[in-house]
Amino acid sequence: MKKETRERLIDSAFAIFYKQGYQGANIATILQDVNINKGSMYHFFKSKKELGLAVVDERIRKNIITKYQAVLENNRPYMTLFEILRSSPDTLIYGCPLNKMSQEMLYIDKEFKNVLTSVYQDFESCIANILEKAITLGEIDNCDTQVRARLIIAGYEGALMIYHLNQNRNQYNAVIDALKEQL
Amino acid sequence: MKKETRERLIDSAFAIFYKQGYQGANIATILQDVNINKGSMYHFFKSKKELGLAVVDERIRKNIITKYQAVLENNRPYMTLFEILRSSPDTLIYGCPLNKMSQEMLYIDKEFKNVLTSVYQDFESCIANILEKAITLGEIDNCDTQVRARLIIAGYEGALMIYHLNQNRNQYNAVIDALKEQL
Repeated sequence: MKKETRERLIDSAFAIFYKQGYQGANIATILQDVNINKGSMYHFFKSKKELGLAVVDERIRKNIITKYQAVLENNRPYMTLFEILRSSPDTLIYGCPLNKMSQEMLYIDKEFKNVLTSVYQDFESCIANILEKAITLGEIDNCDTQVRARLIIAGYEGALMIYHLNQNRNQYNAVIDALKEQL
Repeated sequence: MKKETRERLIDSAFAIFYKQGYQGANIATILQDVNINKGSMYHFFKSKKELGLAVVDERIRKNIITKYQAVLENNRPYMTLFEILRSSPDTLIYGCPLNKMSQEMLYIDKEFKNVLTSVYQDFESCIANILEKAITLGEIDNCDTQVRARLIIAGYEGALMIYHLNQNRNQYNAVIDALKEQL
């Protein structure tokens, strides 16, 4: 039960920080959403910051790892990876959670910076692992998978930023397709 | 003199919002920085929001247009564009101001969304104009300059996000060089 409350707090905080920003969000909104009082929250998280760090470390990291590790089970991992990237605007309705939190918190708090950097490294490793698998399966030619992963993530993150600015899905798809074919 | 105070307010607000985020920043900090009182500010901006919109519409837009329009005077615009993109981490010490404000405000306030979208469109036009010029001068082959501008901006924005997460300048340069050569 205690475990469950902790997870519910993280889920609620993730959703509220994602929409309103970490600094813009109010702890009272999260407590109301989870329907607990401040004392119960402090049992799990001593501060808003501790909750924010858990959101990045546990939820944002987990979402990325879960999404991209599943691709490794696929027998066309490269194609599957780009299908996922193409579908991102459907689920990431306010943009990339990692990018959002990074833009806001990287230079405000050292602990946020450390955990955000570590989540990014996991993201890069996930994509590099998919590329390794795609090479092993003969789906793509040999390449420096770390460098290529970085190029894909850069193009993808920028494409997602642009999509949220211009809401043009065809243009978004065109950038993702170009990344798939040209890099 | 009145004009000057208005500009100083925008400069200060730009710097403070850039570092702390729009929601995280306090108007009192800006007033202290510019050394005026609230009444004087309200002569120019009726609210924090009005000041925030002016920062995007006037300062963030101007910085982008000034930086990239100058490239058109150059006789190797494509090369010069990529020199500028390569040097971005030296000046954009907290990341891309347009991306930061977009990640924070796009889905919080419709007026911010409108002005951010309009600044992005100017950014895309600036880059497309540089590509047009580069084609005219025979520096690069003919291409759909709008599509190519979008690809360059996507890769650049993502590369800058990654740079601020991993602080690896060589990796940043490698992404920019790949954008220059492969797109």
